[in-house]
Amino acid sequence: MKETDDKTRETAKKLFGAGIKIDPPYLMWKEYDRDLANDFSRFITGNLYSRTVLTLPERQMAACAMLAALRAGEELRLHVNAALNVGCDPAKLAEVFFQLATYAGMPTVNEALVVYRDVLKERGQWPIERPAEK
Amino acid sequence: MKETDDKTRETAKKLFGAGIKIDPPYLMWKEYDRDLANDFSRFITGNLYSRTVLTLPERQMAACAMLAALRAGEELRLHVNAALNVGCDPAKLAEVFFQLATYAGMPTVNEALVVYRDVLKERGQWPIERPAEK
Amino acid sequence: MKETDDKTRETAKKLFGAGIKIDPPYLMWKEYDRDLANDFSRFITGNLYSRTVLTLPERQMAACAMLAALRAGEELRLHVNAALNVGCDPAKLAEVFFQLATYAGMPTVNEALVVYRDVLKERGQWPIERPAEK
Amino acid sequence: MKETDDKTRETAKKLFGAGIKIDPPYLMWKEYDRDLANDFSRFITGNLYSRTVLTLPERQMAACAMLAALRAGEELRLHVNAALNVGCDPAKLAEVFFQLATYAGMPTVNEALVVYRDVLKERGQWPIERPAEK
Amino acid sequence: MKETDDKTRETAKKLFGAGIKIDPPYLMWKEYDRDLANDFSRFITGNLYSRTVLTLPERQMAACAMLAALRAGEELRLHVNAALNVGCDPAKLAEVFFQLATYAGMPTVNEALVVYRDVLKERGQWPIERPAEK
Amino acid sequence: MKETDDKTRETAKKLFGAGIKIDPPYLMWKEYDRDLANDFSRFITGNLYSRTVLTLPERQMAACAMLAALRAGEELRLHVNAALNVGCDPAKLAEVFFQLATYAGMPTVNEALVVYRDVLKERGQWPIERPAEK
Repeated sequence: MKETDDKTRETAKKLFGAGIKIDPPYLMWKEYDRDLANDFSRFITGNLYSRTVLTLPERQMAACAMLAALRAGEELRLHVNAALNVGCDPAKLAEVFFQLATYAGMPTVNEALVVYRDVLKERGQWPIERPAEK
Repeated sequence: MKETDDKTRETAKKLFGAGIKIDPPYLMWKEYDRDLANDFSRFITGNLYSRTVLTLPERQMAACAMLAALRAGEELRLHVNAALNVGCDPAKLAEVFFQLATYAGMPTVNEALVVYRDVLKERGQWPIERPAEK
Repeated sequence: MKETDDKTRETAKKLFGAGIKIDPPYLMWKEYDRDLANDFSRFITGNLYSRTVLTLPERQMAACAMLAALRAGEELRLHVNAALNVGCDPAKLAEVFFQLATYAGMPTVNEALVVYRDVLKERGQWPIERPAEK
Repeated sequence: MKETDDKTRETAKKLFGAGIKIDPPYLMWKEYDRDLANDFSRFITGNLYSRTVLTLPERQMAACAMLAALRAGEELRLHVNAALNVGCDPAKLAEVFFQLATYAGMPTVNEALVVYRDVLKERGQWPIERPAEK
Repeated sequence: MKETDDKTRETAKKLFGAGIKIDPPYLMWKEYDRDLANDFSRFITGNLYSRTVLTLPERQMAACAMLAALRAGEELRLHVNAALNVGCDPAKLAEVFFQLATYAGMPTVNEALVVYRDVLKERGQWPIERPAEK
Repeated sequence: MKETDDKTRETAKKLFGAGIKIDPPYLMWKEYDRDLANDFSRFITGNLYSRTVLTLPERQMAACAMLAALRAGEELRLHVNAALNVGCDPAKLAEVFFQLATYAGMPTVNEALVVYRDVLKERGQWPIERPAEK
């Protein structure tokens, strides 16, 4: 258990320890039920997120793609920030959100782009330096 | 237009030209309306998919993550096959689907895993060679 | 009540009395609970569908647009058949499903097009006579 | 009709007559169309909600579970308040929202928990007295 | 290309050139990537929206039905305004949203009615003049 | 860990050990990755499902309500069977699915009723003995 708790803390710090300030859901879970909060946190951040099949940047690219598709704005906010913290390329992330047009339509794209632009602005990274394409 | 048409064909071939046999939606669009089918194909495969901000494997990892989240089984089938065609790592793809547990719940995970296992079996790549983790 | 029951039957006949044979959900509701089945039927077909603010073809165009967006394949099947029964233009209906691309993405479009093509084939109306555009 | 109208009013009062102040959707429907508003209200509150197969607390537990799953925040707010009005156990309701993790993922859980905490605070019932488990 | 650009501008003006002031998503896309923004705009407004199989009012009725079903509030706001600009009947539009009750449930209906009422108020068209039914 | 594993097995047996035969998703997870499968199983069945804030029948009523709302047919099949195994009242379960009409619309209701009727038939419990209402 001790080992899982250490991994949980360490991974959480890499993901959420920098960038803009957002209260992680963990704090709310704890207000409801401390035991459950720890169970969730250990499982999600300790077990799943600490697996190394995907690098952290790969995992965060996937997380942002999925959260945008699910129109989960609050979590997306948390995870684009985390993605930038672990070194994802800002232009690649934007490209993923535009690609969503084909699979989920423009309302879903637009919601993601609004959230992402807000986070980039708060981090002082807006506008994205455009990749020199061709 | 000629140039876009060439890019459309070339990208389509890389994605869908190998692996298991699935009729792409383009054939159905064409039965409905040849002009519209070409407009869609040029836009999606010619314009969007040919952009180089993301590599093709990166784009397909994101596509599969999003289609799984959207529970779009038919398209997922098409795109996991394409992902494997352009060189995505089979174990990383599975990991992405398991990660979806946190964001979309187990029914969504299970639907993706069933589709993916079927495609891997048809391609003779099942079971996935497990990465030597730890 | 008698008046509502007459309107229910009359509207149901216009919508579902021709074209391909599909068991309406009403039969299943009745197997569960005859009273509830009648309550639902009276409310949906008797009250809502009998209102004349929209003509029946206008109402069915909207119904098909919404059911396609919701990815409700079974009901869509029932309602594209009903739409054709009350005189909706087959080419306009196809156009609505293609338009969905912008709002809901291609998987949703493709699901609707597959259902619609099946119904048109069963009714002997496939392929759609294309409108002479321009 | 008179009898249904009485049941509608009586059930509505039990559900929405206490706790925090929220305008029920009925008021908006009436602004659009008085007849439709009455049809909806009679059907939903008069017919469906007055059935006794489920007790009101059982029905409200199910309603909250479904509305949380559907990410329908506004209606959830209305119905967690109603659930508490008819005697649902606050700790059981929280447990249902946490259980949603397995089926719908954490963003859906978090949205429900935020709405629920707000309502509990407005009612002066926050934090929930924790059940003495084990 | 010139011809498509002219059609794009002309159609956009008919849809979005009057009524309430809303920044179209195009402006945000352009902040991210001018080329992509033009690709999207040409495809959606230039290609799809300029097709004449559906009249503009028919297309907007379908667009509003679909966006309401998808619970895409921001785009719905844009498109009910556009629907009124191109001559859709305000009472018919309301009726479509009420019809959604059968297919998507009341939370979805209520979200659409709130958005629609706001737009009608801003345009000075609230309450809707009720059609003389029967 | 041993204790959690015992609870996992014991709870799984109560839920899935009787009634119709359905392969639980756990078997597929294990084919992909034995460690992950155990992590998921321990977390979901061992931790969450073994909590006693809700009785097992209460938990299964909520699970079925949520899975029906999410249109997760495969998991619903698994969980209506489990609900009947732990003693949920068949008529109450049907009532929950009908109630979904108000919140999610008829397509969602119909999907749930079809799944439920199939399971009841396989278990020899169809048609449901109707409660003597009023």
